[in-house]
Amino acid sequence: MTVTVAKGFVAAGVPAGLKKSGNRDLALVQNLGPLNAAAAVFTTNRCQANPIIWSKQVIVDGEVAAIVLNSGGANCYTGAQGFQTTHSTAEVVAEKLGVSAGDVLVCSTGLIGEQLDLAKLTSGVAAAAAQLSDQGGQMAAEAIMTTDSVSKTASHLSKDGWSIGGMAKGAGMLAPGLATMLVVITTDVVADSKMLDRALRAATRVTFDRLDSDGCMSTNDQVTLMASGASGISPAEADFTSALTEVAMSLALQLLRDAEGSSHDIAIQVVNAATEEDAVEVGRSVARNNLFKAAIYGNDPNWGRILAAVGVTQAAFDPYDIDVEINGVSVSRKGQPDQSRDLVDLTPREVSIRISLNAGICAATVFTNDLTHEYVEENSAYSS
Amino acid sequence: MTVTVAKGFVAAGVPAGLKKSGNRDLALVQNLGPLNAAAAVFTTNRCQANPIIWSKQVIVDGEVAAIVLNSGGANCYTGAQGFQTTHSTAEVVAEKLGVSAGDVLVCSTGLIGEQLDLAKLTSGVAAAAAQLSDQGGQMAAEAIMTTDSVSKTASHLSKDGWSIGGMAKGAGMLAPGLATMLVVITTDVVADSKMLDRALRAATRVTFDRLDSDGCMSTNDQVTLMASGASGISPAEADFTSALTEVAMSLALQLLRDAEGSSHDIAIQVVNAATEEDAVEVGRSVARNNLFKAAIYGNDPNWGRILAAVGVTQAAFDPYDIDVEINGVSVSRKGQPDQSRDLVDLTPREVSIRISLNAGICAATVFTNDLTHEYVEENSAYSS
Repeated sequence: MTVTVAKGFVAAGVPAGLKKSGNRDLALVQNLGPLNAAAAVFTTNRCQANPIIWSKQVIVDGEVAAIVLNSGGANCYTGAQGFQTTHSTAEVVAEKLGVSAGDVLVCSTGLIGEQLDLAKLTSGVAAAAAQLSDQGGQMAAEAIMTTDSVSKTASHLSKDGWSIGGMAKGAGMLAPGLATMLVVITTDVVADSKMLDRALRAATRVTFDRLDSDGCMSTNDQVTLMASGASGISPAEADFTSALTEVAMSLALQLLRDAEGSSHDIAIQVVNAATEEDAVEVGRSVARNNLFKAAIYGNDPNWGRILAAVGVTQAAFDPYDIDVEINGVSVSRKGQPDQSRDLVDLTPREVSIRISLNAGICAATVFTNDLTHEYVEENSAYSS
Repeated sequence: MTVTVAKGFVAAGVPAGLKKSGNRDLALVQNLGPLNAAAAVFTTNRCQANPIIWSKQVIVDGEVAAIVLNSGGANCYTGAQGFQTTHSTAEVVAEKLGVSAGDVLVCSTGLIGEQLDLAKLTSGVAAAAAQLSDQGGQMAAEAIMTTDSVSKTASHLSKDGWSIGGMAKGAGMLAPGLATMLVVITTDVVADSKMLDRALRAATRVTFDRLDSDGCMSTNDQVTLMASGASGISPAEADFTSALTEVAMSLALQLLRDAEGSSHDIAIQVVNAATEEDAVEVGRSVARNNLFKAAIYGNDPNWGRILAAVGVTQAAFDPYDIDVEINGVSVSRKGQPDQSRDLVDLTPREVSIRISLNAGICAATVFTNDLTHEYVEENSAYSS
């Protein structure tokens, strides 16, 4: 069901021939209304793909009728021709669905610097438009996969009769600002675009933004939220935001679990920080430390690498009053070894790092993966 | 010859039993004068090892009589006992050489969070002191190796009769601020500690500080420069700084070539930047991008990953007016593909990336390595 779990949405996923594999590579999601309110957040990378440049203009008025997504090419650094391809794709969608091209978001994912085949996109859009259905969510979720090994979907059904559904793709370049990915979330609540924007930013801040698989930020990230109003219900903003955050966290953790070549999912919990920003900075620094990540891959509780990563941040702390736990074992306290590192069992996939800065009452958790042979393998032969 | 190429210095390297292998693991370098001027730069990591805390105090008065270095343990996060070990080591050196403990620098390298064996250090210092000789430079260079596959030394002999000699260790955790390493450079020029400090900072700024093998900054980095004055010559400061920079660059590039598990040495030259700081920021961002580094390992000229790394910086540029060359092939110009990526030959070990920001006249080169299976292998099983 995914994006079609919410009333008022239809979707489809088809093979347009962009992927050499012949797998589904084009997804279309249409909002049938009665509302067409929407919000979106984009990569903060300054080198942005053509669909990002296009979609940022589309979202300005808070109205979106449909979103089209393709894998098989990022359409980034493809110049004027590439932008024209994005524009034309939106126009083809608009024509097929009888909406305005200015209300059609476009997302692309794949290799940078290669032109997309507009003819394939055009026929793919036609095929997808013909197959749109309220059962099409799963097909759409499959069509946006690149190196993902599984499709990612999530939903929330409220007791009151409104719902949220989502799909995501991303299995590498998961990074801050936005974990690299395309995400589409739909809802049938009655809400205006301003409230959707507030809720979406609140939800992404503690979910997708806390995912830092490999420190690399994509040129194509986009998270979109669309509301149809088809439930006729206006939930309290706090309730909606909470449910949206739950759906976003589910999708984020699915992205983490499927990150390229990973063998451990690592939750870095930073507590007793002076500010939440400090906690995030420390968590991110550890999440990006290749030596730490390689050690976890080797099931090696080398806690010195954690402290070395903490030490390069500007967060408030006394370097000799930091406590570190790995999977519940207190390996270092107040600048000294505590329990033996030999007590730490790193064989399970889930790894919990707890860093207490002893400088305040704030906390944050950053999620990352280990650095593995398989990561190197997948990413050393991507474009070839 | 290395550190003993400069007149007025004796050195030794001995096995003290700190390394399980039984290899040389303790080095001692003594300045016989007549001067004992010195300068040093240290890791900017806030989590600092005990020898760093000690040595920062020793260097304050600009006088150093000797430096003792051990591999086989970092003596970091080892608490009061660990600091006492550093202090005692300096005192043993002072006693053996008839100098003040307050003029003895201490450096350590190895695993964080393990106590060093003071009895082994003490007997090692005694053995080294007994073997000090003006032929001992190479032994000392070998004694500071950890995962290094070769010892690193360099020297400069001026026509005027003064000289500079150096040794370095480091083959991982090579990072900004200081590439992780221990470096000792000696010279027989007549100079005061203030001039040595200026020259050392000028030299490290464009050499060791531009090395970013894996983005991980050590808790134990130290670069020390000692002057004996034994040549009786006071070169012009500019001439000395230039020669010192040459020696430092030679050592830095040797560190790069021996970085753990690397298969490519990558020079990232950023040109036409608005400021040198911008050029360094951009170079560093690319140097730390795991996706880029894995692509180079796979001989894959995936230039989109370079632009994606440039795009996350705050440097001045127009994202669609950046030119990228890989090994002399112009792969992207003004936001579009230029020559075919298939023309790029990445089989040689040396890789040259040239990024033109087209925003000014400044430039900088940052050096890094690729991300390889061997890097993951070496760093996933270090402490075990």
